Amino acid sequence: MTRTVIESKSKTVTIGFDEPFCVIGERINPTGRKKLAAELEMGDFSTVERDALEQVACGAMVLDVNSGAVFTNKMAEDPRYADNNFVEPTLMKDLIDRIQALIDVPLCIDSSVPGALEAGLAAANGRPLLNSVTGEEERLEVVLPLVKKYNVPVVAISNDDTGISEDPEVRFAVAKKIVQRAADFGIPAHDIVVDPLVMPVGAMASAGQQVFTLVRKLRDELGVNTTCGASNISFGLPHRHGINAAFLPMAIGAGMTSAIMNPVRAVEMEAIRAANFLMNHDDNGYDWIKFARVLDAVNEGTPFAEASQTSVNEGGARGGRRRRRTG
Amino acid sequence: MTRTVIESKSKTVTIGFDEPFCVIGERINPTGRKKLAAELEMGDFSTVERDALEQVACGAMVLDVNSGAVFTNKMAEDPRYADNNFVEPTLMKDLIDRIQALIDVPLCIDSSVPGALEAGLAAANGRPLLNSVTGEEERLEVVLPLVKKYNVPVVAISNDDTGISEDPEVRFAVAKKIVQRAADFGIPAHDIVVDPLVMPVGAMASAGQQVFTLVRKLRDELGVNTTCGASNISFGLPHRHGINAAFLPMAIGAGMTSAIMNPVRAVEMEAIRAANFLMNHDDNGYDWIKFARVLDAVNEGTPFAEASQTSVNEGGARGGRRRRRTG
Repeated sequence: MTRTVIESKSKTVTIGFDEPFCVIGERINPTGRKKLAAELEMGDFSTVERDALEQVACGAMVLDVNSGAVFTNKMAEDPRYADNNFVEPTLMKDLIDRIQALIDVPLCIDSSVPGALEAGLAAANGRPLLNSVTGEEERLEVVLPLVKKYNVPVVAISNDDTGISEDPEVRFAVAKKIVQRAADFGIPAHDIVVDPLVMPVGAMASAGQQVFTLVRKLRDELGVNTTCGASNISFGLPHRHGINAAFLPMAIGAGMTSAIMNPVRAVEMEAIRAANFLMNHDDNGYDWIKFARVLDAVNEGTPFAEASQTSVNEGGARGGRRRRRTG
Repeated sequence: MTRTVIESKSKTVTIGFDEPFCVIGERINPTGRKKLAAELEMGDFSTVERDALEQVACGAMVLDVNSGAVFTNKMAEDPRYADNNFVEPTLMKDLIDRIQALIDVPLCIDSSVPGALEAGLAAANGRPLLNSVTGEEERLEVVLPLVKKYNVPVVAISNDDTGISEDPEVRFAVAKKIVQRAADFGIPAHDIVVDPLVMPVGAMASAGQQVFTLVRKLRDELGVNTTCGASNISFGLPHRHGINAAFLPMAIGAGMTSAIMNPVRAVEMEAIRAANFLMNHDDNGYDWIKFARVLDAVNEGTPFAEASQTSVNEGGARGGRRRRRTG
């Protein structure tokens, strides 16, 4: 039984074949959010704090923390700020300190900068998830020793020095290579969470089927948990949330065990909670029935995040709550 | 390649592993609709006609026609009306004549009365789907000869003389028995569409997983198409449509190829169209993009059936349109 254990100071989240789907909140990420990057440059963490609370209220079980900010004003004053190897380690520590001061939930340390990964590992309580290693030689050599040193699980993305293959067999082979290289470092397969890479179905008609096939194969042949950037599937299409809300249950049915996604959307979270129920990962439908009350409030006009927070305050629906109480 | 071919006078619908999901509209059924039964008793077919047009506009590719009415007033005057063997054959013919006069779409002849099945087979144009045979000995002996005589495909429901088993292995064995008995009559497996029976997940926690496992097994081991009464899964639960909208994509991902369901619900039809796209059964996302315009209209307040009809009139989205033009 493959179980990937992630911990905060006092809470444990398990990603596993027999667990509710693990929702990793993606919002704390300045990469695509210029306003957030500008705030962080001024030392303003208010958006980060609000995003942390809101995502957890909406059902995120783990929070991804990405430090990929570009500090354009500081850069003009000090050329060192043009280098993310300089910016991100400090920013990652600051982000994690702020979030951990506010909320006790396992973190996913997300950066392309090795120094930021290590700063995050040093700052994080418990057992965070590291995001990410790829099949690129340089990345393997830098990240796997960190994974070993800190004894943490890691997201393994299925691209290598040749880029992202459109052939799912190649992506499987890359994942297999990462698992084998990790084993050479003494890192077990249950601490590798493979991201098979989700292509946009609007650009590649076989994108959905590729993921479903890969997820099953990764599970059956490598025994690993899986994750993905779920919303990629609907990139460029109208009514994206409708595509996402079908993709997530299909991926879960195929064996996907987590996703890095925006949990502050009722339609996707509804799809995931329904899929948990249908996978027999929601005892007596407890979470679904509690969540139905959140949907009732949303239908009456309450914003989803607010309705979710009310439900949490009342001891209502929250994904993985049962597990998180074990800490 | 398993292909179940159903035809109306001039249109063909193929149920198959590489086809868009076949939506069989369930609305023409007086069993649970007292008002409709009362109308039919008075020879009023206006609701049936409206339901036929509306379901097709919303994306039904086949229409189920169920004759299970109880004529309480006539029964008081003439005791023969207490017997459905007397009522249904005439009613089935009348229903089919009315529907075929209005719309050219393949039908699914649905009754527990053998005489009604035969009356339907005699009245229907093209190659209808017969609904249904079970594993009950008496039913096998009566229905399979009709299937053979009229050379039509048949829905095979996985219960037998011992009732509906909660054990999916028993339900698989019943399906296998029906396929074998059909073969004895010279009826090929591709003309059997197995209904593995969907239990309510609120009453049986493993209900979803049972269906997904059974569908895969029926497909891999018996090579048959599958169908189900999809909404059973959410019986008794709050926000049923949310459960249905996750169940359908998961069932499609597992290999389910059709369902008998209410197509006049935007949320379920959205889930099915998204799943078709994700299964690579929607060339270039043509149907999804057309359907997105229907969703736009629905979001602006137009009822789903009306928005769908407008789209059809404009040559817009309609499930299986491509296939249906082949007739």
